[in-house]
Amino acid sequence: MAETKTARRQSTKNSSGRKTRAKKKKEKISKVRVISLGGLDHIGMNMTLIEYEDSIIIVDCGMAFADDTLLGIDLIIPDITYLKQNKKKIKALFVTHGHEDHIGAIPYILNEVNMPIYATGLSIALIKKKLEERKMTDIAKLNTIGYGEIIKCGKIKVEYVRTNHSISDAAALAITTPAGVIFHTGDFKVDYTPVYGDAIDLWRFAELGKAGVLAVLCDSTNALREGFTMSEKTVGETFDNIFAENSKHRLIIATFASNVDRVQQAINSAHKYKRKVVLEGRSMLNIIETAAELGYITVPKNTIISVDEMNQYPDSRIVIISTGSQGEPMAALSRIAANTHKKISIKTGDVIVFSSHPIPGNEKAVTNVMNELSRMGADVIFQQTHVSGHACQEEIKLIYALLKPKYIFPIHGEYRHRQGNAAIAYAMGYKEKNVLMCDIGDIIEMDSKGWKVVDHVQAGGIYVDNSGVADVGRTILDDRKDLSERGVLIITACISKSGGYVVSGPEVFTRGWAYSGDSEKLIEDVKEIVYNSLESYLQENRYSRGKIKMVIADAVRKFVRGRNNNAPMVLPFILETD
Amino acid sequence: MAETKTARRQSTKNSSGRKTRAKKKKEKISKVRVISLGGLDHIGMNMTLIEYEDSIIIVDCGMAFADDTLLGIDLIIPDITYLKQNKKKIKALFVTHGHEDHIGAIPYILNEVNMPIYATGLSIALIKKKLEERKMTDIAKLNTIGYGEIIKCGKIKVEYVRTNHSISDAAALAITTPAGVIFHTGDFKVDYTPVYGDAIDLWRFAELGKAGVLAVLCDSTNALREGFTMSEKTVGETFDNIFAENSKHRLIIATFASNVDRVQQAINSAHKYKRKVVLEGRSMLNIIETAAELGYITVPKNTIISVDEMNQYPDSRIVIISTGSQGEPMAALSRIAANTHKKISIKTGDVIVFSSHPIPGNEKAVTNVMNELSRMGADVIFQQTHVSGHACQEEIKLIYALLKPKYIFPIHGEYRHRQGNAAIAYAMGYKEKNVLMCDIGDIIEMDSKGWKVVDHVQAGGIYVDNSGVADVGRTILDDRKDLSERGVLIITACISKSGGYVVSGPEVFTRGWAYSGDSEKLIEDVKEIVYNSLESYLQENRYSRGKIKMVIADAVRKFVRGRNNNAPMVLPFILETD
Repeated sequence: MAETKTARRQSTKNSSGRKTRAKKKKEKISKVRVISLGGLDHIGMNMTLIEYEDSIIIVDCGMAFADDTLLGIDLIIPDITYLKQNKKKIKALFVTHGHEDHIGAIPYILNEVNMPIYATGLSIALIKKKLEERKMTDIAKLNTIGYGEIIKCGKIKVEYVRTNHSISDAAALAITTPAGVIFHTGDFKVDYTPVYGDAIDLWRFAELGKAGVLAVLCDSTNALREGFTMSEKTVGETFDNIFAENSKHRLIIATFASNVDRVQQAINSAHKYKRKVVLEGRSMLNIIETAAELGYITVPKNTIISVDEMNQYPDSRIVIISTGSQGEPMAALSRIAANTHKKISIKTGDVIVFSSHPIPGNEKAVTNVMNELSRMGADVIFQQTHVSGHACQEEIKLIYALLKPKYIFPIHGEYRHRQGNAAIAYAMGYKEKNVLMCDIGDIIEMDSKGWKVVDHVQAGGIYVDNSGVADVGRTILDDRKDLSERGVLIITACISKSGGYVVSGPEVFTRGWAYSGDSEKLIEDVKEIVYNSLESYLQENRYSRGKIKMVIADAVRKFVRGRNNNAPMVLPFILETD
Repeated sequence: MAETKTARRQSTKNSSGRKTRAKKKKEKISKVRVISLGGLDHIGMNMTLIEYEDSIIIVDCGMAFADDTLLGIDLIIPDITYLKQNKKKIKALFVTHGHEDHIGAIPYILNEVNMPIYATGLSIALIKKKLEERKMTDIAKLNTIGYGEIIKCGKIKVEYVRTNHSISDAAALAITTPAGVIFHTGDFKVDYTPVYGDAIDLWRFAELGKAGVLAVLCDSTNALREGFTMSEKTVGETFDNIFAENSKHRLIIATFASNVDRVQQAINSAHKYKRKVVLEGRSMLNIIETAAELGYITVPKNTIISVDEMNQYPDSRIVIISTGSQGEPMAALSRIAANTHKKISIKTGDVIVFSSHPIPGNEKAVTNVMNELSRMGADVIFQQTHVSGHACQEEIKLIYALLKPKYIFPIHGEYRHRQGNAAIAYAMGYKEKNVLMCDIGDIIEMDSKGWKVVDHVQAGGIYVDNSGVADVGRTILDDRKDLSERGVLIITACISKSGGYVVSGPEVFTRGWAYSGDSEKLIEDVKEIVYNSLESYLQENRYSRGKIKMVIADAVRKFVRGRNNNAPMVLPFILETD
């Protein structure tokens, strides 16, 4: 906090003479703003802004996958209206690690807001891969940064601090502003025996804590879980057991492609038990290739073979490491389970290891895939080979004990997870006024004297269509829901405006509407209803296209409901001639 | 098996002299058929047929709730084509217990297939309630049956055997045929200390086993879980602890309305801790009223109050028992969480107990409701007050040990659960050939010499629309999916058939389609494309409405894809004049 004091003293000195204005100015300068544009409700769509005077830095730029209730929507990215309004202030994007929920939205925002991007080695490589796919590498300003390095952005300084997570090269950020240090944990766990690289840099946490930390923004994902998250290395031992126990059968291990350490351990067991490794799934090949090039994964010579070479070896010498552990319909394992994979089909006795935990909302999809695989004769091993990448309660306490922040802002999690994180703070003696249970879009201003929500910016999820281009609005989604639940009944007719009679039609057509009874008869009846209401309307009233549409729609809806107890979306189209 | 032997002896005696035919006849008579029309894949849609000569009896008639991927579909009922084809053979429907997945399809089949319905007291009452809502009580032939009673249906005899489950009056069925005894467990657990009524009738299980059982159809729901399911009574102790620890706040307990014993225990704790009980949710009121009338639940005087009387008491003297423990959008608790309940809103400090486990597929909905409640200031208690109603591995072993059946047919569960049940049989020394891993619709013929799948009948799920009447086909669902993911672009035009020119239009309209850029311009462009392709087609070709539609649709799709990277469902409607 030494810096803060210096800044304050200077500001007072410079403004001597004009006391009132000076005081105001001083107050303004001495506060730092924290704005969360994601990661609070829409899990996975992580983005936080730190703003001080004329500088904004962005921490992470993630996307979330859409669930089944968002019809035709693939993914969700943060609303960056506030960033677009403050383009000039934006100094840089700092990425904590290379998971989709922290880097996935980068291609979607770069055309609107561009700035230097900083990240550690593997994260930069994964961002680059993502941008290459979209031919966007030219416009991106990518910078690799090491732990302990400091980047200056105006009066903001950012230091990368080593942590552990379910991907290598994860970092926390110590963000020093004149108002104090904001510490952002990123996604983290404390792994004393990581598979790759070193354990979390607890010394640096201690130093920063001793020097003074204003606020910690802390990962809440596992805050409702007691104890300590197991080391990733324990999974390797379980893999070894599974390889030893199933020496006669082919093995398929499904996991996240991005969990490079998990894949490393599967490869290690394969090597130990003399099996060849087949990597399956586009992202698996992409990420592992990248990780191998950069040395984040060590593959013994002649271990990896292509899927086409697989038939040169007996089943007992093969392990397939594949995507699809979440039951994603297009992933390798799901295609294998649906018997639509071109090169791999299940044989009786295949042993399939789900090396991940279903993300909330994916349970049913995972269950379906497991049932299909079992039905084909495979032996499915579930939930024995996974450890989380997120800190449990005792780890969170350790971080708070080392950093001793003035304020705690639980981030990264559903409301209940963040509430669980707040409860940890209370248990350690923090008062409610020092724990920030804030919402997405809140502008939080803080200094050592206190914090408050001073305003709120537009924030939330932007729905991205399957096609990847559109910003799909709520009306469109409501229409889709309506269409999908009721179907549609379309009526067309051509009317003479001057003569007031029906020139052609009506024609009636339905899609997605379920009706009982004789369908041809029903359509004929609807046509008659439309014709009669058109005729009687045209005889009695002045011609009005809008009014006619309403009259028809009402008549049809009433008729259909009376007959069928349900009604589709009724859409009348009236063409006109003179 | 004494009966079987007698039957066989008789048949041989009667046919003396004509040996070959007699042998054939004997073989036919000596086998019993088991057909599963549900409960194997579509969990919850339970229905099994037992057929012997000219008699069919039905065990259960359940429905399943549809998940999010079945657009606009509310529920799934079994395909009863086989029953419709064999109406004359149907003797009776025997219901094992009163849960929706065992009685829910009754109103949907009674108009097509009617027969006497047998069930224990509470089950009959719940069926009656269901039929009353649809004004169908007149046509239903309902019969209450007690444990130990035997109903004769031709050569089939059915005996009700007491079991335990998460609803009172649950039964297993001992179905005696000349080919042997088929024992159907229903849904069951072994509860030595049930809340209402007696423990499972293990003596009768032992007697039946000693007399000889041909096959057991056994509940597989929890077959992957080790150990023994806890007694329902343990939940009461946990309730007491929660009531004691939260004496100052209002309590809301969400559970299945049908879990009468659970509600009983909540009421017991309420009485003990001097709270008034408010029942919330239509099914909660219905079922508890029915259960109370029949004496399945005991409510101390002046314990239950109406929601309107709630404000006469302090929060600390109120417990609300409500529906919505599965996050069902229209249930009481979900409406409370969404702030759309007319009479109940959350207060800070309210303690909300989820007294159930999310059914696969409901996890996200439950999570969302919990987060909303927490956000409103409520304290959510999850997964501490639930025990399953289904037998775990040790209980299933007990049943097999008592009944010692020749064949084991794992039913009621996903494929993996049934596989788990099969594994229990193998562990107890059963051979693979004595364990039936059969599919829905398989006609299984069995006698003491063996079993085999002799044929397959039409079977599966019939989708029932929100309106409750329609049999929604796959094409309609595919259309709905298409509409819901892409939206629709509708084109109309009126054309002179003889003149070969456009009389009116084209008009273009979209619903649910997400496009980027200037929408008005896009629609104008599409109109122009349509107009131009119409004109050029009409000039060059003979008029053909079908062809014109194709030409327009192709042109529009091509244009739209080029501009937008996605395309809606394109529906052209051509009206004609002479």
